[in-house]
Amino acid sequence: MAVYTEVSDEELAAFVRSYAIGRVLAVKGIAEGVENSNFLLHTDSGFFLLTLYEKRVAEADLPFFLGLMEHVAARGITCPLPVKTVSGATLGRLAGRPAAIVTFLDGVSVRRPAAGHCAEVGRALAALHRAGTDFPLRRPNALSITAWPPLLQAAQGRADEVARGLGERAALALADVQQHWPARLPQGVVHADLFPDNVFFIDDRLSGLIDFYFACNDALAYDIAICLNAWCFETDGSFNVTKGRALLAGYEAVRPLSTAEVDALPVLCRGAALRFMLTRLVDWLNVPSGALVKPKDPLEYDRKLAFHMGAACASDYGLMR
Amino acid sequence: MAVYTEVSDEELAAFVRSYAIGRVLAVKGIAEGVENSNFLLHTDSGFFLLTLYEKRVAEADLPFFLGLMEHVAARGITCPLPVKTVSGATLGRLAGRPAAIVTFLDGVSVRRPAAGHCAEVGRALAALHRAGTDFPLRRPNALSITAWPPLLQAAQGRADEVARGLGERAALALADVQQHWPARLPQGVVHADLFPDNVFFIDDRLSGLIDFYFACNDALAYDIAICLNAWCFETDGSFNVTKGRALLAGYEAVRPLSTAEVDALPVLCRGAALRFMLTRLVDWLNVPSGALVKPKDPLEYDRKLAFHMGAACASDYGLMR
Repeated sequence: MAVYTEVSDEELAAFVRSYAIGRVLAVKGIAEGVENSNFLLHTDSGFFLLTLYEKRVAEADLPFFLGLMEHVAARGITCPLPVKTVSGATLGRLAGRPAAIVTFLDGVSVRRPAAGHCAEVGRALAALHRAGTDFPLRRPNALSITAWPPLLQAAQGRADEVARGLGERAALALADVQQHWPARLPQGVVHADLFPDNVFFIDDRLSGLIDFYFACNDALAYDIAICLNAWCFETDGSFNVTKGRALLAGYEAVRPLSTAEVDALPVLCRGAALRFMLTRLVDWLNVPSGALVKPKDPLEYDRKLAFHMGAACASDYGLMR
Repeated sequence: MAVYTEVSDEELAAFVRSYAIGRVLAVKGIAEGVENSNFLLHTDSGFFLLTLYEKRVAEADLPFFLGLMEHVAARGITCPLPVKTVSGATLGRLAGRPAAIVTFLDGVSVRRPAAGHCAEVGRALAALHRAGTDFPLRRPNALSITAWPPLLQAAQGRADEVARGLGERAALALADVQQHWPARLPQGVVHADLFPDNVFFIDDRLSGLIDFYFACNDALAYDIAICLNAWCFETDGSFNVTKGRALLAGYEAVRPLSTAEVDALPVLCRGAALRFMLTRLVDWLNVPSGALVKPKDPLEYDRKLAFHMGAACASDYGLMR
């Protein structure tokens, strides 16, 4: 649940007047998202989403995120489209924070994805990668492999408070991915956080992608590894190879993988699991008392990592060749 | 912020199928309200509000609340209108809780009401009282004068933790209102919680009333006293007689007050202030650790009560005669 910043009606009315979308008819704080404050906004022109960017999002990165949404939307990806002010800007300020209005996107995120959802996600991810090809702005991945050693260092002293042996498992996995990390995979713009929360469906058809606030330039296949982690495990920690096959086949129907990408898939999956385990672990160990947001469980990714450590090749994830 | 109950997409889809409003296109938890879980619901038929009634609302009272909204809406009051299922019900069950879908109401609540807003509220309150005249259901006021002694008893031992002398001031005020409480004022359906949060405006014109979950049968003038407390004080605790005059004149433009109501206004205001001070005090002393909702400050009503203890007659509130 997340509305971190209260906005007065006068401030909001003045902000909305800088857009050609009519008067404010209603505004409701939305209880979702953990990074920003989100409001559903109804005006004479329809429904919109108003986002106030809180301090976890770097203001300098916002032109990349908003520009990317505009860029891929123009190439057929259904995602929130930033609305421009009368002077042509997509980014403004409200209540002391950077703020943007985007179009309201219909759809419902699925809590328990089936193989059919995974196939849709695979296709959409590949389409997003294609659409991002000629996006001119660049943003390095702030949470890629070079960021993991300091994250591990920050957490290692207390990792075993969460689970016995967790710190050692993380250190072993880090050494492993550092040794095997691929250097020359096809690069591009990746979503980097395409979890089920961030994919909307209507009647089991994918209706849109949201939350581009981790998007960056990285190996395209790393984005697939993130999705295999996020979509294809069961709640008991087992990997569902039917879902993996659906996701990979969906992806390859739009963008076939190179041999190097196929070969790298297991280490990319280990790296992706390690990345989410480490960031969740650091959050878990640093929850402020009275926090409104329950931190996500790092041990979910400890279990996923254990599966990946035993996977030998892409066929273990369901890739058909 | 309030979404106390998570609803799965399958459960929600099944629930919405019992209404003739099409498919679920989107659903967003809303970060407002402290009693219930509220969701904005978009379907093929438009936007709605879905409410799951949590345990602070008695299930047996829901037909009164929902029936009242239907009744007054049919008589020209703009308020959320309960949507009927295909079998004609306004109340269902979802995620183990009573649940209802109502129409989405446009408007924005004002944080700092001006005299013009107070005039609008006075008119709307009187119109609501007129519209409720022939409502056939009855619900006694569970938070009327007979409920205050046990509330005071529950809080008195620790009241001075909140402010020195608070327990004694509350006891004195209770003795005073018990001695002077009027017996035979015109009765009817009162909203009983018409705070600025619960009144919507568009362009400074009142656009609707919400949150009927404290509505009950009581003296109509007691509802005015609640509004004088909620709308006409400044943040420094001073009573703004211009706002009081606007509210009372607005009310009387629609429903003139009887002499007995005019005479009772000061004691009704004392009672209303005491009621909100006591319920806030009990909540304040019983906040569970880790609560998502910040309790409201009882001392705001301690200050208002101090003003009322010095008010002698209705003209002190701005009533013109």
